[in-house]
Amino acid sequence: MSKGTVVLAYSGGLDTSCILVWLKEQGYSVIAYLANIGQDEDFEAARKKAESLGATKVFIEDLRAEFVEDFIWPAIQANAVYEDRYLLGTAVARPCIGRRQVEIARREGAQFVSHGATGKGNDQIRFELTCYALYPEVKIIAPWRIPEFYNRFRGRKDLMEYAQQHGIPVPVTPKAPWSMDANLMHISYESGILENPKSHAPADLYLMTKNPEDAPSAPDVLEIEFKIGVPVKVTNVKEGISKDSPLDIFTYLNEIGGKHGVGRIDIVENRFIGMKSRGIYETPGGTILLNVHLDIEAFTMDKEVRRVKQGLGIKFSELVYNGFWYSPECDFVRHCIAMSQVNVEGKVQLSVFKGQVYILGRESPKSLYNEELVSPRL
Amino acid sequence: MSKGTVVLAYSGGLDTSCILVWLKEQGYSVIAYLANIGQDEDFEAARKKAESLGATKVFIEDLRAEFVEDFIWPAIQANAVYEDRYLLGTAVARPCIGRRQVEIARREGAQFVSHGATGKGNDQIRFELTCYALYPEVKIIAPWRIPEFYNRFRGRKDLMEYAQQHGIPVPVTPKAPWSMDANLMHISYESGILENPKSHAPADLYLMTKNPEDAPSAPDVLEIEFKIGVPVKVTNVKEGISKDSPLDIFTYLNEIGGKHGVGRIDIVENRFIGMKSRGIYETPGGTILLNVHLDIEAFTMDKEVRRVKQGLGIKFSELVYNGFWYSPECDFVRHCIAMSQVNVEGKVQLSVFKGQVYILGRESPKSLYNEELVSPRL
Amino acid sequence: MSKGTVVLAYSGGLDTSCILVWLKEQGYSVIAYLANIGQDEDFEAARKKAESLGATKVFIEDLRAEFVEDFIWPAIQANAVYEDRYLLGTAVARPCIGRRQVEIARREGAQFVSHGATGKGNDQIRFELTCYALYPEVKIIAPWRIPEFYNRFRGRKDLMEYAQQHGIPVPVTPKAPWSMDANLMHISYESGILENPKSHAPADLYLMTKNPEDAPSAPDVLEIEFKIGVPVKVTNVKEGISKDSPLDIFTYLNEIGGKHGVGRIDIVENRFIGMKSRGIYETPGGTILLNVHLDIEAFTMDKEVRRVKQGLGIKFSELVYNGFWYSPECDFVRHCIAMSQVNVEGKVQLSVFKGQVYILGRESPKSLYNEELVSPRL
Amino acid sequence: MSKGTVVLAYSGGLDTSCILVWLKEQGYSVIAYLANIGQDEDFEAARKKAESLGATKVFIEDLRAEFVEDFIWPAIQANAVYEDRYLLGTAVARPCIGRRQVEIARREGAQFVSHGATGKGNDQIRFELTCYALYPEVKIIAPWRIPEFYNRFRGRKDLMEYAQQHGIPVPVTPKAPWSMDANLMHISYESGILENPKSHAPADLYLMTKNPEDAPSAPDVLEIEFKIGVPVKVTNVKEGISKDSPLDIFTYLNEIGGKHGVGRIDIVENRFIGMKSRGIYETPGGTILLNVHLDIEAFTMDKEVRRVKQGLGIKFSELVYNGFWYSPECDFVRHCIAMSQVNVEGKVQLSVFKGQVYILGRESPKSLYNEELVSPRL
Repeated sequence: MSKGTVVLAYSGGLDTSCILVWLKEQGYSVIAYLANIGQDEDFEAARKKAESLGATKVFIEDLRAEFVEDFIWPAIQANAVYEDRYLLGTAVARPCIGRRQVEIARREGAQFVSHGATGKGNDQIRFELTCYALYPEVKIIAPWRIPEFYNRFRGRKDLMEYAQQHGIPVPVTPKAPWSMDANLMHISYESGILENPKSHAPADLYLMTKNPEDAPSAPDVLEIEFKIGVPVKVTNVKEGISKDSPLDIFTYLNEIGGKHGVGRIDIVENRFIGMKSRGIYETPGGTILLNVHLDIEAFTMDKEVRRVKQGLGIKFSELVYNGFWYSPECDFVRHCIAMSQVNVEGKVQLSVFKGQVYILGRESPKSLYNEELVSPRL
Repeated sequence: MSKGTVVLAYSGGLDTSCILVWLKEQGYSVIAYLANIGQDEDFEAARKKAESLGATKVFIEDLRAEFVEDFIWPAIQANAVYEDRYLLGTAVARPCIGRRQVEIARREGAQFVSHGATGKGNDQIRFELTCYALYPEVKIIAPWRIPEFYNRFRGRKDLMEYAQQHGIPVPVTPKAPWSMDANLMHISYESGILENPKSHAPADLYLMTKNPEDAPSAPDVLEIEFKIGVPVKVTNVKEGISKDSPLDIFTYLNEIGGKHGVGRIDIVENRFIGMKSRGIYETPGGTILLNVHLDIEAFTMDKEVRRVKQGLGIKFSELVYNGFWYSPECDFVRHCIAMSQVNVEGKVQLSVFKGQVYILGRESPKSLYNEELVSPRL
Repeated sequence: MSKGTVVLAYSGGLDTSCILVWLKEQGYSVIAYLANIGQDEDFEAARKKAESLGATKVFIEDLRAEFVEDFIWPAIQANAVYEDRYLLGTAVARPCIGRRQVEIARREGAQFVSHGATGKGNDQIRFELTCYALYPEVKIIAPWRIPEFYNRFRGRKDLMEYAQQHGIPVPVTPKAPWSMDANLMHISYESGILENPKSHAPADLYLMTKNPEDAPSAPDVLEIEFKIGVPVKVTNVKEGISKDSPLDIFTYLNEIGGKHGVGRIDIVENRFIGMKSRGIYETPGGTILLNVHLDIEAFTMDKEVRRVKQGLGIKFSELVYNGFWYSPECDFVRHCIAMSQVNVEGKVQLSVFKGQVYILGRESPKSLYNEELVSPRL
Repeated sequence: MSKGTVVLAYSGGLDTSCILVWLKEQGYSVIAYLANIGQDEDFEAARKKAESLGATKVFIEDLRAEFVEDFIWPAIQANAVYEDRYLLGTAVARPCIGRRQVEIARREGAQFVSHGATGKGNDQIRFELTCYALYPEVKIIAPWRIPEFYNRFRGRKDLMEYAQQHGIPVPVTPKAPWSMDANLMHISYESGILENPKSHAPADLYLMTKNPEDAPSAPDVLEIEFKIGVPVKVTNVKEGISKDSPLDIFTYLNEIGGKHGVGRIDIVENRFIGMKSRGIYETPGGTILLNVHLDIEAFTMDKEVRRVKQGLGIKFSELVYNGFWYSPECDFVRHCIAMSQVNVEGKVQLSVFKGQVYILGRESPKSLYNEELVSPRL
């Protein structure tokens, strides 16, 4: 008899494939759930793989538009940056993925959700806090924190063996000597050879951005229009291209930012549970938007409102990093920040070149800039 | 009979030359004081000019080393950035200039100090707060706030006429259509054609940094070593050059940053008195150091100490921007920040290329990073 | 010919009576405006006095209800306390008074407003910031900052003489050796013999509260009900009295607090312009409400929301103290705080006795308190 | 064979007596450690009891002086108050107790420490964070979180039975229907009949303070002298008594505060782990000192330093409440606060009466108060 139904956050990779089979072994009925948040993935192949491994149902959900509108946009409004550098690309995706997962669990009458996050990272926390917040009665199965699981799978070799025994297709290309997490907003790279904080990242690591050294030798010039603190239109001034839906805008900025090598950082950050971790990130479109939003906000927002809002933005960033998107305090702070954006409206011109974003000029019907006042006597 | 002695912050330019002569006309004995804080200036020509205009004494003071050690270094420790973007290049220079000016005033028994700052900017405030803090009995003569002066000099034309009448050498090259303030840390550009926030800055504006488009097509790779949160050595890894005095380190980072076009920003900021102002800044060495200090600090400082210190750094930046370097609260905050830097020590490797600073790796004897701890099971 | 019309904030006292006449002398047409914000005053006598002194119109405005609802209630929601002790009784009244004053000025077509505040205090700033915020074109006449006025009236003797010469009724009772400011929320006492911070306040100073030593020897027990962070009903449990309009509630709490000597403080505070000043305050009803609101808020508000909101409350208090009630930042903070109060609802029982407020118990339909959860095993 | 040596925080009560015996049963050698931090206890009886139960050693440690100097004094400097009301009497005691416990453990070569705190409260966290911070290799045995223990002792009845079976003296007086924690700074009461947040506390609950209704009908007038933000002398003005060692000062203030019923509060607070809990506290001497320190600090500290320090004090209070006394961030904040107290010096006169503290006047050689400056013209 089944122990119940689990909605498993399935990636199509080796780990979550093994988890899927292992959950079945443990007596659960498993629904595979794969969120499309913009990562580069063969979703149909993943569907077939999950079905072949015995998932009772498979949901491939295209969350890209809601990811941009409900999660990336509030982060842009907040100028969300963790510890002065990290743009939170993974952290804002987790509540988006988790929200749909518990929707499916509720709809399908599943009492359990499961994920493949490890026991040392931030993602387990972000995932689980989302689930508990939106579906308090749910039970979470985190195999990498369950002794029977982690004692059985002490290394990649154990997973490979288990895969071979259970008909799980084994990856043919060797695993990269680091782990990565990709979505529409960014790709992060960590672990493996990157764990030594002194080692330089290999040049071929980056998938989303060109090496600035190989980027075009002429800039692209864009104009981005904002309303209530979020972009509503982007125009490539020279090429005459323009985009005006949130997903199109963000995708286009990723394209331009990626082409010019924008948004690469190599940092050591403090994880929620305190330990320091080295991460390499590329966030092309997000980096452009952070710069441009800072500019239009400074242009249209009262000085002292800005100071208060800056503090709230830092608080927001910490909350999001730590997985508290769905918490009373994050709701509160997010609403306060949204309120501050009412007049953040106007157009910014910028160029993008060799890894950099250069603000060129700005204009706004809500500008608080007074050219006459600022002019000195001489 | 003399009304008393004034120490005038003299730049050698048209404005302060006219002020020098005008102060004499008003019955003051004038000491000209010109601080060398790294700006590009013919100091000997300025000395002769001041003498020829009737200054009773002329002091040309080389403050570059103390500017770096006593003012730029604390700003680096604080990660000082005003309104998320401006690195405070002018703001940190004012208390340095003012400190020496009141030293001279005290030593020379002058009851007055004077400056050529306008009545709408931040610099008058920064200057005067420094003077009052360090020499509370001093009287300040701010001609651009005195009706007899500003009504007489309603435009550049009036200054030119006055100059011709009083034997003040008139600049032969036409004035740039903007104003600038230069020192070792940065050059700022504002006013004139830059006042329209929508207008793009002309390409030939920048004096301290190369246009990234024209910068070398290969990066420089540096290693910077820190102790107690300040750089103690910079090495150009490929070229084998290294520097180890504060002034040499900073000058070299300016050279490298300038060569690669690092540190250009175009922003609208909120002045102390509330009005918004558009400024263009280039801060090559400071931008490199901000990035590198953020990295070594994150590597060696406890997470929660970092959070508290980040808040103090923002407070520090506001105080410095507003001219309160010499105030009880800025002293307090600066000491707290200094206390946080005890273990900020180690080496960061980085590359500088086409306007960007890329952190490559870091190591430290005081690192709180634990490679073993961070490593996941798989 | 008249220089224009001035709306003068008139108190009926010697100072503003002299100002009224002096403004007429200067060629202005003067409208006297006297706000009833709960101070003990013979308003009809004041009306007649103003008329007899030549005011072209006299407005006596009963602002008590709006003072409570629009100004005291937001302060209660914020737990507004300046520098850990002062409940801002004068500071919250100023924008209330000023708001009506500029309404009258606009309605009556007056280009000027005037007040009797001195040049060293906070009230001039609070008053003027309110006027400029709500009526940016207005011109403010502040006689105590105008040399012709303050050089003429160098002491109370000069005012008395001027009064006698101009038919201004002279107070028959001698002036108290301190100054006071009274309204529904509090009375403040300062200056005169209180200026020596070491001197004890005389026992007969207080007008709003009984000396706790003479207060009843049995407590009153109240129940106060809150909705969205403001009191909607107060009941005297033993006496069966209850009040449910804002003005009645606040008046009744003043009565009970006053009877038991609640809310007396003697402090040194930092004025806006930096100088320290010694003030003695009695805030009976406000002190009760601060205590009770803290209690119901802690009972119904999420822990982390509370932390963020506490910071905003401190910011709000500083802004209000400094006169920035009508500013973009205070609007923003006030709206954020209001948003935090949605669930601050319930009933608190308390006793009031000999200068103290004792919370006895609380209940709420929105309580986040979980008796079952909190219970230990044993 | 012994599993090792445990230093048990022993109170002499039923719970920790049972734990002592149970630990022996489990095969540990047990050292009983009882800290005298000012609670009312028969320490010699406790020693005998522990010995009779089989403790290999018993340490009764008088920590009162160091509790005042090293823990209460920094809290006074910080104006430490948690959530606007709680003076942290239990929270500041835990690191004091824990510090000595790990000193004993190190000295005696014990690998384990143990305590009787439950699994829902703050004290387990405060205790354990202290131990781990000061003795990172130590292992902690928390019986109330160990299934074999808490399943065996499901209620007081089980403890009583176990006691009878094992020769543990059983309390003859019935247990109060609440739990309490007492030390020199305060007594807290919670649980039992107090868990219903609506129920009023019984009048006979309080042990440290008189009911204000029964307190003397005349005040005591004190003068307290401060240096570097801590009291160095207290004088009873009328009675001529004075005290000048930290422990004597604090004890005397407890006596005076207790006599007049000062420092009783009934609150709902947010525990570290988030749940709300109702607590009743009496903190007589601490409440007097909080009021007096606020006064002398405001008198001698720069306005803007005070603002920054106020924020640090709130942070400090949260850290201490949550058990992080011994953490890098609390060290940092505590040092910053200490630095702010250099000039907090002078004398405050106050009266204590019927539950209240009234500041009467203050004087200081370091005063920033300028009587001349503050005086208005009239």
